Amino acid sequence: MFILQKSCDSTSARAGVLTTPHGDIETPIFMPVGTQATVKAVSPEELEAVGAQIVLGNTYHLYLRPGTETIGRFGGLHRFMHWDRPILTDSGGFQVFSLAELSKISEEGYAFQSHLDGGARHLLTPESAVEVQMALNSDIMMCLDQCIAYPAERDQAAAAADLTTRWARRCKARWQAETDCPNALFGIVQGGMFKDLRARSAEELVAIGFPGYAVGGLSVGEPKALMLEMAAHTLPLLPADAPRYVMGVGTPADLVEMIALGADMFDCVMPTRNARNGQLFTAAGTLNISNTRHRDDTEPIEPGCDCYTCRHYSRAYMRHLYQAKEILVHRLATIHNLHFYLRLVKEARIAILKGNFEQFRKEFHARIDAG
Amino acid sequence: MFILQKSCDSTSARAGVLTTPHGDIETPIFMPVGTQATVKAVSPEELEAVGAQIVLGNTYHLYLRPGTETIGRFGGLHRFMHWDRPILTDSGGFQVFSLAELSKISEEGYAFQSHLDGGARHLLTPESAVEVQMALNSDIMMCLDQCIAYPAERDQAAAAADLTTRWARRCKARWQAETDCPNALFGIVQGGMFKDLRARSAEELVAIGFPGYAVGGLSVGEPKALMLEMAAHTLPLLPADAPRYVMGVGTPADLVEMIALGADMFDCVMPTRNARNGQLFTAAGTLNISNTRHRDDTEPIEPGCDCYTCRHYSRAYMRHLYQAKEILVHRLATIHNLHFYLRLVKEARIAILKGNFEQFRKEFHARIDAG
Repeated sequence: MFILQKSCDSTSARAGVLTTPHGDIETPIFMPVGTQATVKAVSPEELEAVGAQIVLGNTYHLYLRPGTETIGRFGGLHRFMHWDRPILTDSGGFQVFSLAELSKISEEGYAFQSHLDGGARHLLTPESAVEVQMALNSDIMMCLDQCIAYPAERDQAAAAADLTTRWARRCKARWQAETDCPNALFGIVQGGMFKDLRARSAEELVAIGFPGYAVGGLSVGEPKALMLEMAAHTLPLLPADAPRYVMGVGTPADLVEMIALGADMFDCVMPTRNARNGQLFTAAGTLNISNTRHRDDTEPIEPGCDCYTCRHYSRAYMRHLYQAKEILVHRLATIHNLHFYLRLVKEARIAILKGNFEQFRKEFHARIDAG
Repeated sequence: MFILQKSCDSTSARAGVLTTPHGDIETPIFMPVGTQATVKAVSPEELEAVGAQIVLGNTYHLYLRPGTETIGRFGGLHRFMHWDRPILTDSGGFQVFSLAELSKISEEGYAFQSHLDGGARHLLTPESAVEVQMALNSDIMMCLDQCIAYPAERDQAAAAADLTTRWARRCKARWQAETDCPNALFGIVQGGMFKDLRARSAEELVAIGFPGYAVGGLSVGEPKALMLEMAAHTLPLLPADAPRYVMGVGTPADLVEMIALGADMFDCVMPTRNARNGQLFTAAGTLNISNTRHRDDTEPIEPGCDCYTCRHYSRAYMRHLYQAKEILVHRLATIHNLHFYLRLVKEARIAILKGNFEQFRKEFHARIDAG
């Protein structure tokens, strides 16, 4: 259930509350990526402390290792990974497409092999994708979709979007076959970079009817302007009373722009992955902690930031840990970056609720430009 | 200042309190090793939670990187690494001996080069070893000593012990030249595996006079029985009213036996290093978390253990993280192992204070034998 609390007058930004079996999520929200049943380098308590309300798990990875049987012994992913707040899982389709060996797509689903279990053969169908996500007890499950590379021909994009629609019907049927299933299922809009295909995909998915909708197939290598153009075209085609999730996005500036376009939910490895590479986000832009100029700097990463890292550690110490390859730095950097992302969406939300999102957005860009 | 609170009737075990500028330490105590200004994989708050009262820093590593100038900007190691409890630093001699390239020893000190700063030449003298440790603001500084390999000829062991004595005099002189220096300086007994050399070394160091004494040159590859024999011979030669630190020891069983021989302080990389290799300590012995039999095990590492890891995570989850190479497992395993070590010395201390250490010791060994 999604309650739209407030819409911006001058943009399409919205603030809402999404209810799940493991608690409410205030939107717009960023979802840290916990691919293998852990958000890399941080604990569940640290995720709570930085303001995470929901994390993402990857069905493909968890299906292969440790497997749904193992996670099933814990009644799902929450107890297994000691996270009792909401979890969203992807369908596994994107990873089969990008990671699996010998992946083959048909009307039935994806046939694939993986080195993780010695090359055993697997079939991921719309039905099995839902079943695996039910075994994980994911609060928000995603329909199996067909991802395409960028750039793609129109024919290919059309075929993938159509298959995604047919699979969405099968996913919904499998989901509805489960009596009183508390887990939500979101449909995913495809259609490549073709506006009419995007419109048709959105229309068909809305006709099937889901409690939430995602815009897939963005942030796959296309120019930033094109990404925003496609989102601006697609998001208004989705129902105002359902949450809208833009998958795999993005930089802090991307989030602010996507929020302005009416998106509610985001996930991206950028804050966590970049943290482990020593890149830290601040309101004035990014800094690379390995830089020599931080060597004797007793200031925190971002003066004024109230994250655990900035309250207790200096740039000099962070640089020392990074140079010395001490793994504590991955944790400290991840905490700061996730705190930055989650503070950003929280500030955007507050601005929307207060009716001054447009001002917030301008100031955000001005700070980065000045940085 | 060291207060001896209680001695065991049937063994040489003792319980005491060691006062330092950053707080009191209840002995016997185990000191987690924080080589590069971080105990690998854990935060200062986690160290406090597992009961750590003092951590060890390595002068050689910190001198080379980030350097005493950088740490000096923070007034020492405590603020730099966000640890406001006691810190003990070694003198750097052992690492120069074992890690440096082109290390050359003379009456003056160690001349060495390191790849860490592009092969610059350094001279580590008894005086500079004290000065570097003062810059680190170490609560307990160690005298520069000469380490020898095992096995060693008698002539070599005698020469090293004699040089260690002469260096100890110079370290003490440098320390005393500092007005009202709050940091303690410990002498280190050498002498290889030769009892008369150990006795002479101890006698000479006690004659010089230090607030505490270490037994160095043990746990360097000699048989366990010989290690205990040398400790049993050396420890009684040290003043009862000063703390006794056995360097680089050891397994849980080693700690219990060394406590029985009258040792008060220990450091070892075993709980932290083995944690990162998936080896976890329990009262019944060690377990390897990568073992297939833990795959679906919903039990914690050690049922009944109240560490953070055992309160929230299963063996199945720990094994999954280990197999998936997720760095959270290093933290969770390190927390458990350090908690195990610190609970062990705490239980030994309580047993000494209650007058039933001998019974504690027997039960400890019986549990391991039954495991």
